[in-house]
This record gives sequence, C-alpha cells and structure tokens, in this order.
Amino acid sequence: MNSFGRIFKVTIFGESHGESVGLNIDGCPAGLPLSVEDFLADIERRKGGTQKGTTPRKEDDLPIFKSGVFNNKTTGAPLTILFENKNTRSGDYEKQRAVPRPGHADFVAHQKFGGHEDYRGGGHFSGRLTVSLVAAGVIAKKLLGDAKVTASILEIGGEKDLEKGLQNAIDHKDSIGGIVECRVTGLPPGLGEPFFDSAESLISHAVFAIPAIRGIEFGTGFAAARMYGSEHNDAIEDMTGKTRTNHAGGIVGGITNGNELVFRIAVKPTSSTPKEQQTLNWETGEQEAFSVKGRHDLCIALRVPVVLEAVTAMVLADLLLLEQRIKRLV
Amino acid sequence: MNSFGRIFKVTIFGESHGESVGLNIDGCPAGLPLSVEDFLADIERRKGGTQKGTTPRKEDDLPIFKSGVFNNKTTGAPLTILFENKNTRSGDYEKQRAVPRPGHADFVAHQKFGGHEDYRGGGHFSGRLTVSLVAAGVIAKKLLGDAKVTASILEIGGEKDLEKGLQNAIDHKDSIGGIVECRVTGLPPGLGEPFFDSAESLISHAVFAIPAIRGIEFGTGFAAARMYGSEHNDAIEDMTGKTRTNHAGGIVGGITNGNELVFRIAVKPTSSTPKEQQTLNWETGEQEAFSVKGRHDLCIALRVPVVLEAVTAMVLADLLLLEQRIKRLV
Amino acid sequence: MNSFGRIFKVTIFGESHGESVGLNIDGCPAGLPLSVEDFLADIERRKGGTQKGTTPRKEDDLPIFKSGVFNNKTTGAPLTILFENKNTRSGDYEKQRAVPRPGHADFVAHQKFGGHEDYRGGGHFSGRLTVSLVAAGVIAKKLLGDAKVTASILEIGGEKDLEKGLQNAIDHKDSIGGIVECRVTGLPPGLGEPFFDSAESLISHAVFAIPAIRGIEFGTGFAAARMYGSEHNDAIEDMTGKTRTNHAGGIVGGITNGNELVFRIAVKPTSSTPKEQQTLNWETGEQEAFSVKGRHDLCIALRVPVVLEAVTAMVLADLLLLEQRIKRLV
Amino acid sequence: MNSFGRIFKVTIFGESHGESVGLNIDGCPAGLPLSVEDFLADIERRKGGTQKGTTPRKEDDLPIFKSGVFNNKTTGAPLTILFENKNTRSGDYEKQRAVPRPGHADFVAHQKFGGHEDYRGGGHFSGRLTVSLVAAGVIAKKLLGDAKVTASILEIGGEKDLEKGLQNAIDHKDSIGGIVECRVTGLPPGLGEPFFDSAESLISHAVFAIPAIRGIEFGTGFAAARMYGSEHNDAIEDMTGKTRTNHAGGIVGGITNGNELVFRIAVKPTSSTPKEQQTLNWETGEQEAFSVKGRHDLCIALRVPVVLEAVTAMVLADLLLLEQRIKRLV
Repeated sequence: MNSFGRIFKVTIFGESHGESVGLNIDGCPAGLPLSVEDFLADIERRKGGTQKGTTPRKEDDLPIFKSGVFNNKTTGAPLTILFENKNTRSGDYEKQRAVPRPGHADFVAHQKFGGHEDYRGGGHFSGRLTVSLVAAGVIAKKLLGDAKVTASILEIGGEKDLEKGLQNAIDHKDSIGGIVECRVTGLPPGLGEPFFDSAESLISHAVFAIPAIRGIEFGTGFAAARMYGSEHNDAIEDMTGKTRTNHAGGIVGGITNGNELVFRIAVKPTSSTPKEQQTLNWETGEQEAFSVKGRHDLCIALRVPVVLEAVTAMVLADLLLLEQRIKRLV
Repeated sequence: MNSFGRIFKVTIFGESHGESVGLNIDGCPAGLPLSVEDFLADIERRKGGTQKGTTPRKEDDLPIFKSGVFNNKTTGAPLTILFENKNTRSGDYEKQRAVPRPGHADFVAHQKFGGHEDYRGGGHFSGRLTVSLVAAGVIAKKLLGDAKVTASILEIGGEKDLEKGLQNAIDHKDSIGGIVECRVTGLPPGLGEPFFDSAESLISHAVFAIPAIRGIEFGTGFAAARMYGSEHNDAIEDMTGKTRTNHAGGIVGGITNGNELVFRIAVKPTSSTPKEQQTLNWETGEQEAFSVKGRHDLCIALRVPVVLEAVTAMVLADLLLLEQRIKRLV
Repeated sequence: MNSFGRIFKVTIFGESHGESVGLNIDGCPAGLPLSVEDFLADIERRKGGTQKGTTPRKEDDLPIFKSGVFNNKTTGAPLTILFENKNTRSGDYEKQRAVPRPGHADFVAHQKFGGHEDYRGGGHFSGRLTVSLVAAGVIAKKLLGDAKVTASILEIGGEKDLEKGLQNAIDHKDSIGGIVECRVTGLPPGLGEPFFDSAESLISHAVFAIPAIRGIEFGTGFAAARMYGSEHNDAIEDMTGKTRTNHAGGIVGGITNGNELVFRIAVKPTSSTPKEQQTLNWETGEQEAFSVKGRHDLCIALRVPVVLEAVTAMVLADLLLLEQRIKRLV
Repeated sequence: MNSFGRIFKVTIFGESHGESVGLNIDGCPAGLPLSVEDFLADIERRKGGTQKGTTPRKEDDLPIFKSGVFNNKTTGAPLTILFENKNTRSGDYEKQRAVPRPGHADFVAHQKFGGHEDYRGGGHFSGRLTVSLVAAGVIAKKLLGDAKVTASILEIGGEKDLEKGLQNAIDHKDSIGGIVECRVTGLPPGLGEPFFDSAESLISHAVFAIPAIRGIEFGTGFAAARMYGSEHNDAIEDMTGKTRTNHAGGIVGGITNGNELVFRIAVKPTSSTPKEQQTLNWETGEQEAFSVKGRHDLCIALRVPVVLEAVTAMVLADLLLLEQRIKRLV
C-alpha cells in the first residue's frame, strides 16, 4: 500500500513528528553514481522556505544512506534512505486530539486506524513524507537518460502573476491553491500499456499520492471535451511519430507517442488556513471554533512542482526499465 | 499489465476482430449468485446503439461463463467469461495497414509491438474491450452492499442539452466529446490508503484504462485551485463524518470520509470523425488524405457512463474486500 | 492467487467437469511463432494414457486460441487458450457429495468455499488443470533460448526399474508415488535474487503448484545435510563460473551460477487407490467405507515430468525477461 | 524482489558490513503492542553464540523503531526497524576481492551486479540479514492468535545427538549441516489456495529465502514417494477435519486441513570451513589455495530454527489476514 512500481519499486515511510521519514527503493540498477550532493537541489526546491507564503519550518534534510550504496554507487541491493525530523514541536497535539482539523486526514485516520494512528502533525499522512518522494525522484531522474522532466506553476489563487496571487492570500488572511504543469521531453514512443497500465493510469496513480491534488488532465484535457474530433486529432508528420499539434499530450492509446508529455494538476488551497473555522469535537459531540496553530504554508502549490517531477520520474523510470525487456522478438 | 486489483483481480483480453473478448476475475468470493440475466441491463447500456450518434454495430453480447460458476453461483475459483465477436468485417484493414488513423493507437501499437499487433479495428486497443470492463463491473457492483454507483453525462460537445450537442455534431459532420460525472452513495469511511494507494490514485488508475479519457477531477476539482482554504474545507458535522459541504468529493487524505464520492471525467471527441484528415503513410513516408470507413460513434461519451461505473465498482469492491481484514486489533 | 510470474504472468482457470480449462498469459513478448502443433508433443506426454498405470481418460486436448495470437504469432497482447472438457462423466458426484475422498481436497475445499465449490471430479482442484500448466510451459520453453529443460522419472514405488515398480502396484492393487528429477542446461549465470526471490524460492513456489508434490531438493539436497563443508563446496574452475562438482545444483546465494540446474521432487502416491478406505460422511458424522470409482492413475508421477518442465520453464522465462532490464549501468 | 507477502508485506535491506540492516513491514494491522523487549528472546536464539560451533561475533542487536510505532503500539502505517552493525571488521576484504569463496555468493554477485556489489562479508547476501527476518517473525507471531510455530533441530552432521555431531566437526576441522523441523499447531483449516498460492508454495518460497537451505519436505515428504496410496492417505475422523494419521503434514490440495503443519528442511554445511580449499583468482585466472579468515559458524543449522519459525510465521500471518476477507458470502 505504501509501495509503487513494478521494477523500480519505491516504498515510503515515517511520520511528521516521529524520529525520521524515509524510503526504500528495490530494483534500482547497480552502478548508478549517488551522493548526498545529488539530492540538495531538489530538496531545497521542496522547502520553498524562502518564499512568501511557505512555512518557516526548516530541516537540514540531508539524506542518510542506510543500505544499497557502496563506494558512491548503487549496488543493486535495496536502497534505504532516511531523513531525520529535527525540527518538531509536538506539545500541543495531545490537547487537540478530539478536534479534527477541517480538510485534513485527522478524522479519517482515526476511523481507519481505530485511534492508534500517530496523530502528531498529521503523522504518516503529513506532507513531510513528500521529502521521501523527492528523494526517490532524484534517483529516478538519473535513470531517464535523455528524458527531462520539468514542472512549473501556471497559476496560484487563480492568478497567473504569482506574486499577486500570494499577496491576495496574505491580504485575505486565507490560504490558496494553484495549477501546476508537468512537461517531459525526450521520451521514446512505446511506454505504457493499453488499458490498466496506460501511461495516464500510472502517472495519475502516482500523482494522486501527492497530498492536496484534486485533478489531473493530459494534453488538452477537459477542454478536449468541447472540441471536434477533427480539431483534436494530432496529425502524424513523420516516421518518428512527431505530430503537428499535441492535443494528446504525448500519449495515445495509453502509450507514449514520442511527442512531449504534457499534463496539469489542480492543487487545493492549504487546509490549514489562518481563518477561524468550525469543526466537530468528537469527545463533546459539539461544534467548536478552530484556529490553526503552528507553521503552515499559505499555498502548498508552491512546493508541488519538485514533488510532481519526482513522482513522474518514478513512473517513467519504471516504464523504461520494463520496456528494456523484449516486447517483441523480431 | 492487463490486470487490476489486489484481492478482486480483473484481467481483460481479446481483440476487436478476433474470435472473442473476455475477462478473468481471480479473488471473487464464493457464493455470489450470478446468471446471464445479471449482465443484460449494463451491457445494453454500453451498446448505446439506439441513440443518435452511436455506432449501429450490434453484438448479442451474452456472457459465456467458462469457469468459476456452478449452480448459478460463484465458486471461489477464478471466473472466466467470454463475449463472442460475431459482427466483424475485417476486409479493409490489410489495405489501410500503413496509414495510422489520427487519434488512434495504430502508430504506437506498431512501434511497441514491432508490427506483430493485431491491427484489425484497433485489435487489443479497441473500445470493444470495454464490454469486459462492464462485465467485471456487474460482478463488482454485487459486492458493494449498500453502496450505489451512478454515472451520468453532464454535457456533450460543450452543451448541457445533450440532444442539441449531438445535433450540432451531425450538422458539422464531426465527432464530439463530453463530460461524465460519477457519484457513489453509501460508502463507509476508511477505504483507501495514504499516498500510493489513495482512493483517488486507484480510481484514476482504473478510469484511465477506459479509452478516450483525458482528465479526472474529484469533488470541486480544478475549481478548487481558485478557492480560498476557508471556503474549500468541509466542516465535519457529526460523529459519522458527514460534512456540511462536499468540496472534497468524499475523499480526504486519500481515504473515503463517509460522504458521497463525486468525480468527473473528460472524454475526448471520437477519434474516428467523418471529416477528411491528413495522416502519414509509413510505407511511402508521405502525407495522405484519410477518411473514416466503417461504423463509428459520433460521441463515445454517450457509452462511457456504464463503463465508468464498472471500473469504479471494481476499485471499490477491491477496497471493501481489503478493508475486511483487520486494520486494527482493538 | 491463480497467477504466477512478474513479467511473464500466467493465470490458470477451469474445473475438471466444467466446460473447459484454460490459461491466460500476460507479458508474452510479441512476435513469437505459435501454432497448435507446438503443443501436441507435450500435451501427449502429459496424457500418459498409453502406459500401464495411467488413466484411460482421453481428451483431444487441442489448444483453442482465444486472444493474443494473430497470423500465427503472438501479438504482445494477453494470450488466452482454452482446452475443452469433452470426456466428462459427472453423474455420480452428487451422491458422493458428503463423503470427502481421503487424500483429496474435497474436505478443505468445502471448508474454504463454504460448499459453493464445484465438487465434480475435484473441480478447480483437479489434476486436469495441469494441461494449462503444460500449455504455459510450451510457450515458456520457446523463450528460453539455449536453455533446455528436461525432467525424468528416477524411481516409482521405490524402484528404479519403472516397469517393476508399476507391476508391484498392480499386484498390490494400490497406487504408488515416485521421484522426478529436473535438469536445465544452458542457463546464464545471474538469474534470481538474494533472499525472497531466490531461484530456489521461485522454482519451489511453482513446483508446489503441481498437485501431489511433497518435497523438493536442489543439487545434493537432503544429503548435503550429512556432508562436510569441504566436500560440499564446489570449486570454481574458470571465469565462466564452471565448477568441478555440482553439489549446489547450479544455484548459489539464490542466483544461478552458470552450471547445470538440478533438482528433484517427491510425488506422493495417487490419492485415488483401488483399495477400500475409511472416511467421514459429513452428513451422518459417521465413518464409512469408500471405494474409488471412475478412471484414475495408479501412479501420477508418470505424468509429472512434462508438468515439472512446464513450471520450471515458466519461472526461467520470467527470470530471463526480468534480467534483460539493466541490472547494472556499466 | 526483496519483499514478500500480499497483505503483511515484509521488505528486508542492508549489508553485512554496512552501517545497519533492517526491515520494513507494510500492512501490519494497527493497535498491536510492540516494544523492544518483544524481540530479545528470538534475537538471542538467532545469535547462537554461546554454543560450541557458532561464531563469536556479537551484536547488541536491539531493534530501533524508525516508523510505524507510537505509544508502544503499531499505528497501521509502515513499520521500519533498523539493527546497527557495530561489530564489523572489513580490512581484509579488498585484498580478497578477486578470490570468490567457494560455496558463497561472491562469484554470482559479481556477475549479476557487474562488480558494483558491496563485497565486504557477503554484503547484501550475508546471513546477517536473517536478523531482519527474525524481527519480522516476532511481529508475525503476534498476529497468529492460537497458532504456535516451533522449529527444532533433528540432526546435525548426520547425528541425532547434536553434541556428538558438533564434536565430530571440531575433530575433523570441518563444517557440517543439519536437518531442521518446523511444526505449527492451532491453525484453522482453509489457509492457502489451489495451485500457485498453495500453502506449500508460499512456505517453500519463504523458506528458500533463508541462506543455505537445500531442500524442503512436507509431512512424510520424500518417504511418501515410497508408500502405497492406501498407507499414505490420512483418514478424516470428524467434522473438524482431524485425521487419524498426518502423512500430509497438515496440507491437502494446497490448503491447511486443521491438523498440525509439519515440514523439514535440509541445511547445507557452512560454506566457510576451516579446511583449506581451492578456488579461482579471477584476476590471474589461476586456481589458488584459500583459507577462511574471520569468525564463522561450524554449523549454521544451529541458528536456523528461529529464522525458520520467523519466515513460517510471516507466511501464516499473511494467509490469516487474507482469509479474513470474505471467501464466501454465505
């Protein structure tokens, strides 16, 4: 349940206010150069801490290799990486136990795990675990060869001018969401399978593992539902599969077609908003006013691009490794 | 690759112009009453043949039980069901071999399988295989207990008045797409897992197995990206988890929260349009004009609701069966 | 539960007295030549009907391709093959319902599936399903390249002279078992993984899918437990990994080492013996005398070699396909 | 590849001379009490350090919980446990690099991973990783309810008098193997599946994950191949499934039948023997004399029982969790 991938299999674990979070990768090929430095740039991008609207919580977040790396290369044995949780304050959580935060997983986690869940800061449901996803992505990207994955924010709070969107949130003392786009160049045709393991199936599966995502669309996406077929179809131009337009976003019949892979996702506004809200107290059975305490982002969409790149790279690395077995004998 | 599910595991197989298509279900509990009659209504809905804009191809499409059913009940052994392909005409396909149809999988299938693919009518990539999905859905629905899955068309060709949308396509001699919504009532809280096996991950994985789907959004979806957190958060009203609003669409933190499950999908316009198009001839390397021959829907979105219900029911049946093991000891 | 393999994934289905048994293979590479003739020799070997001591039941047992084959080659889409059950007589089974046959699965199937199991002739538990295994083996063997799998009987009823063993059984009016050995030449080193997916783990997993197997040993096997280390260790002779002796049976550390793969299995005596036996009648709760009716082998070990080759080939084909992805980058 | 289990899924990782070894369990139910003390007895049994013939290497081997435990109970989120490698000496390994130890995985690991493997003390292939298996077993045993798993040594070096067998090895300055038996009482009928996921398939799969195992037999095992059917069949005595004899070892048709589960395994003599041996030097291409340096057991079979119990408990915990979903509706 906490694993993903058929050949390049990633497992994530840990809790927000536990000692650490981490990941295990089984199936990473041997001989891949790997050092702490490889992780720094993407982990820094995830922190987002220098921007307006992102939480001031800081972790050094240096990966600690526990297995699978030897002489600065992967060994072919399972990789385990930990990230310590240094900067946690969990004093208040006991008191807030019976008051599930609106928009958060507190209520469902309590239902599902019968009250045994680690409830401090969202526990295993915390966005803190995206550092494990980012780390898996760093390794996956190294396996992609010529393919390059780039995600960027298209709008936040409905504004294409991001600075303006954020200022609006600050002025309203409320949190906001955003739209993030991912593009992948340099992919070969032939990745993905018809039906259940379509490239869209696998990518969307991985993408919805990121907290706060509410939608995904490939190529022209929802707008395609309002086009004519003759408009939407992409004419194939040459033997490489290159198409004149790219309404399909690089996937036809569940299979990559050699064109740029393009998709967009919707990120909901951060559940923790400075605004006072109503929620249930499950001990008293009464509604009560609730105000967020602690450090929180006004717009988590700002941190999403590097996480989106990571899960996309995980899917594509797995598909590339799968495709290297013979799909055909002649 | 052609299987889905952890406990209730569905495999689909077959080709558009082969002898038959079918499915295998491993993990269906024993003792479920099952007869041919159970399938008729949903299979009829999938045909859509009586509506304007859907293809006149007709199959009797009666399920033929090959294993796993005894005395009109499931036995607990794997179920195999076939649907014969009676009404196929494959004469023209050889001639069209080197001319990949725009929007179809012809080109990528040829790349992926090295020319060994069954190219007649899309072969294994054909929408014909959705009859296998519908059949799996019929069985899955029977396992859902009180939960009821209902999908319906919200708009076609951009029109909420469906008749008007379709007439517009006929007038333009072009194909159109649509938006389909799925709602599930009666679900217990606690289905799904944090991260990789979130309810959204599993549902979207299954949904993108349906041909022609280009996007999915849960609850408020893409519009959530333009809301404030205080607006989007759903206030929990009582101990059952019922919320005042349902912007989350029934899933929080990847887990069902006991409210109605709501999501929408975008269906692209049918790739086979009556309009003449340009495409590559891979033997000559030249572009050539291409016109669709044969029977085709103007709007496949019309057939999608029952297929969408089916894949949704498959995911939910699997999650319900999984949840019946002990998630907690006390 | 009825599937096996990571890349070359085989699912078997059907019942002894149902309409047919069959198999589905997902992940078979495209372009493999495949015709009915390819199956005849191994299916004939499985029947064993011309030998003393094997059941006279005869099926034509011609494979019927339902999907995944086009122009006499595999397409890369899932393969489905059926074998019709023509020669069934199920009249008596209803009467014997409450009298579980000793050594057979009747009692456990009834417990597990709550009485919903198809109880005619063992239903899904029947040795009839080994025809599906044999068919999967025919295809798997074609993927093995230079590797050649050969299984043969070492002894039956404790006799190396097989004719004598069988005559002994006939004279005693009782059934007997046997020992079967499997050898594979031409395997590359490097197949299998340390620990959970060791070559021995995967082979034994597949082997115990064959009904009536009670033990397996690799190389020197149980006798190794009585050797000294200096005797048992195989000295490596050259850079190809060739060893002077082969006590390891071709697997070290869970990985093939380039030497001949050798293992042996124990087949229990056929549960259906002509001798009268005692068993429970679960309706009356009383013991009652039981005599086998119908056609049965005196020694099913005689039919096992081709089935053993088949499951071994399935494992090795899967490992070869897996190994073709990059295990190492340099 | 380094994972096992469908619901209770165990992943092991680490290297002999790396910083630590460990495990991850995904799918452990929430609410299971768990403390360091729970592990001490089985981990002590694994060390075997107080017996003649076992290596003096000592590790404190206290489990360090990294995730999934909160307030001394499991949370339902993935469990991660580390064991530090404190007592390693790796100075000599570089020198011995080109001289694969007979009977060990050095040669195959080098072939498989292209020289990128961690070669110190067997690296990921080391018996050190059995501490991870034992830890998984401690948790699995807690899930078994009334079922009790007990493994014990039947003979070492061919002697039932274990003291005598060991003294013989010491006198011969050579290593020896042994036979270990595992018995499980209190199991319900109905665990396991026909064919690929038979109880024997799953148990043997897990058992061959233990280094040095060369054979497994259930119930009467290889001796069954020399019995008559009327002797071997176990007569069912009453409605609980209890049989008069237990030649089947508690499994019929791949399914537990409610009787005691019994199987035996063969453990080869320790590959590291004090005797001088010949092996290849892959740099020179010449044979050279080789003598074991460092700490090693004369008879690893002495340490196997607790590891065997562990992997058996893992399989049974998984099957029990699986069986709790509805196998039948009535």
